[in-house]
Amino acid sequence: MNSWGDIFRVTIWGESHGAQVGVSIDGVPAGIALCEEEFTADLDRRRAGAAGTTPRKEGDVPHIVSGLYNGHTTGSPLTIEFVNENTRSGDYKNLISHPRPSHADWVAQKKWNGYNDPRGGGHFSGRITLGLVAAGVVAKKILGQSVEFSTEITEIGSERNKEKFAEIIEQARMAQDSVGGVVECRVKGVDVGLGEPFFDSAESLIAHLLFSVPAVKGVEFGDGFEVARKRGSQNNDCIISAEGQTATNHAGGIVGGITNGNEIVVRAAVKPTPSISCEQQTYNFESGSVEPLVIKGRHDVCITLRAAVVIESAIAIALAELKLRA
Amino acid sequence: MNSWGDIFRVTIWGESHGAQVGVSIDGVPAGIALCEEEFTADLDRRRAGAAGTTPRKEGDVPHIVSGLYNGHTTGSPLTIEFVNENTRSGDYKNLISHPRPSHADWVAQKKWNGYNDPRGGGHFSGRITLGLVAAGVVAKKILGQSVEFSTEITEIGSERNKEKFAEIIEQARMAQDSVGGVVECRVKGVDVGLGEPFFDSAESLIAHLLFSVPAVKGVEFGDGFEVARKRGSQNNDCIISAEGQTATNHAGGIVGGITNGNEIVVRAAVKPTPSISCEQQTYNFESGSVEPLVIKGRHDVCITLRAAVVIESAIAIALAELKLRA
Amino acid sequence: MNSWGDIFRVTIWGESHGAQVGVSIDGVPAGIALCEEEFTADLDRRRAGAAGTTPRKEGDVPHIVSGLYNGHTTGSPLTIEFVNENTRSGDYKNLISHPRPSHADWVAQKKWNGYNDPRGGGHFSGRITLGLVAAGVVAKKILGQSVEFSTEITEIGSERNKEKFAEIIEQARMAQDSVGGVVECRVKGVDVGLGEPFFDSAESLIAHLLFSVPAVKGVEFGDGFEVARKRGSQNNDCIISAEGQTATNHAGGIVGGITNGNEIVVRAAVKPTPSISCEQQTYNFESGSVEPLVIKGRHDVCITLRAAVVIESAIAIALAELKLRA
Amino acid sequence: MNSWGDIFRVTIWGESHGAQVGVSIDGVPAGIALCEEEFTADLDRRRAGAAGTTPRKEGDVPHIVSGLYNGHTTGSPLTIEFVNENTRSGDYKNLISHPRPSHADWVAQKKWNGYNDPRGGGHFSGRITLGLVAAGVVAKKILGQSVEFSTEITEIGSERNKEKFAEIIEQARMAQDSVGGVVECRVKGVDVGLGEPFFDSAESLIAHLLFSVPAVKGVEFGDGFEVARKRGSQNNDCIISAEGQTATNHAGGIVGGITNGNEIVVRAAVKPTPSISCEQQTYNFESGSVEPLVIKGRHDVCITLRAAVVIESAIAIALAELKLRA
Repeated sequence: MNSWGDIFRVTIWGESHGAQVGVSIDGVPAGIALCEEEFTADLDRRRAGAAGTTPRKEGDVPHIVSGLYNGHTTGSPLTIEFVNENTRSGDYKNLISHPRPSHADWVAQKKWNGYNDPRGGGHFSGRITLGLVAAGVVAKKILGQSVEFSTEITEIGSERNKEKFAEIIEQARMAQDSVGGVVECRVKGVDVGLGEPFFDSAESLIAHLLFSVPAVKGVEFGDGFEVARKRGSQNNDCIISAEGQTATNHAGGIVGGITNGNEIVVRAAVKPTPSISCEQQTYNFESGSVEPLVIKGRHDVCITLRAAVVIESAIAIALAELKLRA
Repeated sequence: MNSWGDIFRVTIWGESHGAQVGVSIDGVPAGIALCEEEFTADLDRRRAGAAGTTPRKEGDVPHIVSGLYNGHTTGSPLTIEFVNENTRSGDYKNLISHPRPSHADWVAQKKWNGYNDPRGGGHFSGRITLGLVAAGVVAKKILGQSVEFSTEITEIGSERNKEKFAEIIEQARMAQDSVGGVVECRVKGVDVGLGEPFFDSAESLIAHLLFSVPAVKGVEFGDGFEVARKRGSQNNDCIISAEGQTATNHAGGIVGGITNGNEIVVRAAVKPTPSISCEQQTYNFESGSVEPLVIKGRHDVCITLRAAVVIESAIAIALAELKLRA
Repeated sequence: MNSWGDIFRVTIWGESHGAQVGVSIDGVPAGIALCEEEFTADLDRRRAGAAGTTPRKEGDVPHIVSGLYNGHTTGSPLTIEFVNENTRSGDYKNLISHPRPSHADWVAQKKWNGYNDPRGGGHFSGRITLGLVAAGVVAKKILGQSVEFSTEITEIGSERNKEKFAEIIEQARMAQDSVGGVVECRVKGVDVGLGEPFFDSAESLIAHLLFSVPAVKGVEFGDGFEVARKRGSQNNDCIISAEGQTATNHAGGIVGGITNGNEIVVRAAVKPTPSISCEQQTYNFESGSVEPLVIKGRHDVCITLRAAVVIESAIAIALAELKLRA
Repeated sequence: MNSWGDIFRVTIWGESHGAQVGVSIDGVPAGIALCEEEFTADLDRRRAGAAGTTPRKEGDVPHIVSGLYNGHTTGSPLTIEFVNENTRSGDYKNLISHPRPSHADWVAQKKWNGYNDPRGGGHFSGRITLGLVAAGVVAKKILGQSVEFSTEITEIGSERNKEKFAEIIEQARMAQDSVGGVVECRVKGVDVGLGEPFFDSAESLIAHLLFSVPAVKGVEFGDGFEVARKRGSQNNDCIISAEGQTATNHAGGIVGGITNGNEIVVRAAVKPTPSISCEQQTYNFESGSVEPLVIKGRHDVCITLRAAVVIESAIAIALAELKLRA
């Protein structure tokens, strides 16, 4: 479904080439000072334009159409909309008969009997994440200034040296290809005790939202998959203070599904953009045979660059929900 | 919270040393033939006793107390209970003043103001997963015989050669230590079209449940974190048949959050059991200083062995929910 | 919260004098033919202008901004917005210090610490029901043409003779007063078997939505409160055909919380508009004493007239949810 | 579905003649002192035995099997079970071919394709309400001692004089018939500000739960259906103190869907027990014709007597949910 959260409930809508994309956020406490300018910083981080991102540029201007009065949230749903501009719908029939590999084109047709909006990926477009970023801004205000997010791209391709990222991306671009990456988000200052076992562990809620973000194929906390390669004596985090501080943080700040006050550490693996310019051999449902496909148009070579803030926003939303439940 | 699912709703309860653990499953279609014996196979896979598992053995006998009539499900909640036996409660005061590293002992105290049941981990005990395995059996019946689960442990410690797993575990046991692992679950025969974007992608629902399972610290689909190290041309799965079969399956059977009919491939990283017999230095809240802690009692050296069927069950539950929604 | 439904999920937002009111409807099956004109009939029934209704007239033009493509629903959220026009915000400070009797003015201030939007009732304005009516139109399309709604006002004041309703309303208007009424909705052609006991009986879902409609203070099914005055032999509905037709319909088409295929009969009591022009004695929080209050502006003398279609829409939404669950 | 509540989540199960009926309550705050004896008073009010109630008597002894430790709630699910005793299953085939008028017999068969448990009404039995009453006891502890419930039967048959109730019931019993009634519940001491518009008004949540109670066919708040017969000047409640006290309480303590601190007043209409001993003419699905049916066994002549505490419990549950959300 297109809403998430029991207390801080985020509802999104829109298609890439429809009239607008938007988000309505329910459960926002009344009295939070907010203005449209406060969305700028995070929206800019998501915006196209940097090396490795699509040249399509849009205003991405948020319009708050409900839930704000005299510069403060009212306790009623806060609704934020973004008008779609600069769409080149062109001809999408090709996507239907000859769907792009590793895109949702074919499954969407099957699921909705061909009635899905195929233009620009429709509801599967990364453009939908504008609403997620907007909700993340609100979530951060709920969490308060003592909660600090630090988000970095730790890998692109198989490279972990940040200084070489631009080069890796340029090589992929030259090859008419794309490249994946890993985003790591660290969150300081989170209260002890967030998380609602059994089913709503802090990890469950965060992962639920992260796997909603298009292109995420893996999520791990703390040492993540490395825990499998360790012994208990290497992985255990001994407590060293009355506040619960641990000597190490292999758990990434979550134990038994509950935050323990140490830094939350989450990583998400982002796949290489499936839209690539080089030729691919894939099934044509009209002709009934595998045929070469060349995807035209503007694409992100490395969507990880823009996904970072989306991932951070998703984590913020999950933490806001958990905080408001506590 | 302790219930999950909108249509196939699983509610669990119980503590390790309380009267019982149980599960009530709502949304089970009427008319499914079912008997208590059908739970045996999966419950046995979860049972203690093998090398690397705790010597505590219990009947683990499921009692169906509602929702079954004349050998068939009735459409009303199906409730299954397990009586707790063989509990040695002993003295748990020590856990309160000197909580075990990387266990929920301390966060649970903080969250519930010291009112949580600390005996045997209380509600955080792996024993709670009995209900999850029982629900998984029901979920598999809903999915039907055409859906096949194949679950394997692919890593223990840093070892991937299965023939050496027993040795790795024995070494950890001798060292009074524990060891982590990776469980991989493959599911064949899943319908095309399961998954409810934006927020309820197939990956989101599966990951939500997997991160409820104690000890899981990472979840990935298909190539998972490896996608970060690849180019689009290496990661894309080209379609080769009218049924949507793909030449490769880097996506693990899920594209755009929706199943594409190819094999679903999920991996979960399971941390080494935090209960280890060797001495640890951790904070004593009574004395106010870091002190040595020795954990007594029976522990699993490699909980991954027993977690495999729990992980498979969690995936089955998520797929049953998705199937009933479709 | 401002969303309702597990499968057919309606999310509403907006304030009377904000930028817009809107609704996003999730879970709409793909492939339903729909256009903005189809909303006209029901929106007109809700529109102001008749005798007994407020003279404020607005376009009430629905703008579909997502979820529609090529004249059909896509399976993605269907979002419909209404621009607010013709608002005379004026001075609402008076409402804060001297809140109107039987309005939400005072409770809203208390609940949201004075941050609620007070203009025109803010989020409590009947204008929010535009979204409900729009969702009702979509719900009716899901229910299909075999389901027929027949909605009537059966009482105004203590009068049950429809020919005298206009007179009763005019008398109230002349007295600078308002008057209440009863709306009865009958629904033919509903499938047998809708309703999800224990908690989601057909009556529970319908009543939940009806009591969301501002001004509704009572809901009854079939003979309703009259059942209290009868014996079982007078109230029982004997079945007379293989299709479950009953000789009488005291139950209003719902037995054991489940529809039985007979006509559904629901009545809702609508209170007299609390905004009346005659002077009232009520507490002034600024002065700290009970003082006369005269409410200015445009009011509905008999909101029942406009509420009828809202009540019908709420019932349609509940039935659509139940149908999609079945 | 068989669970209700977002924060205070009540899940029920069981059939009249199955092994047990039970309830699991999630979201109970930790640290509430509780013992099985505290359930006695309300369970006794629901128990059979008084004039007008069925002679079937059961222990109705609550067994708390999870969520309680050292005499206090733990924050984990609190599960309470009741063993079914004294069941006379006998032959229920007759119910299938010749279903009882105004019972769920026929709709249940249709809904669950004949797999429902028909014995004693199965999941539709009033016995399921044991769990509701138990949850109500917990809800009242959450609300605290300052919240006082006062519940009365205000009508039986068309009689409002309480001294004549016994006579009315005896007359119905002599006539092998049953009789309906009205239950009124008044709640003092409820905080101002409970209720979550738009969809989760205090009235919506209370009515949702009340219409889950078998036999309830009408729900009204404050003056209820009488509001339809009044003018605004007669129905408005003017505020007379800084605490929001009103001179009158036509609204029954809820304005705009939000509690206003005045006494909450709710009434529910309870239909006459459909099981009556006198002969009824109803359809026999085996013979294909309308035939006389005589229902044997033990029945409540006036289920209203036992329903009163169930209705009170349902209201307490709704208020606990609303309080924990606030």
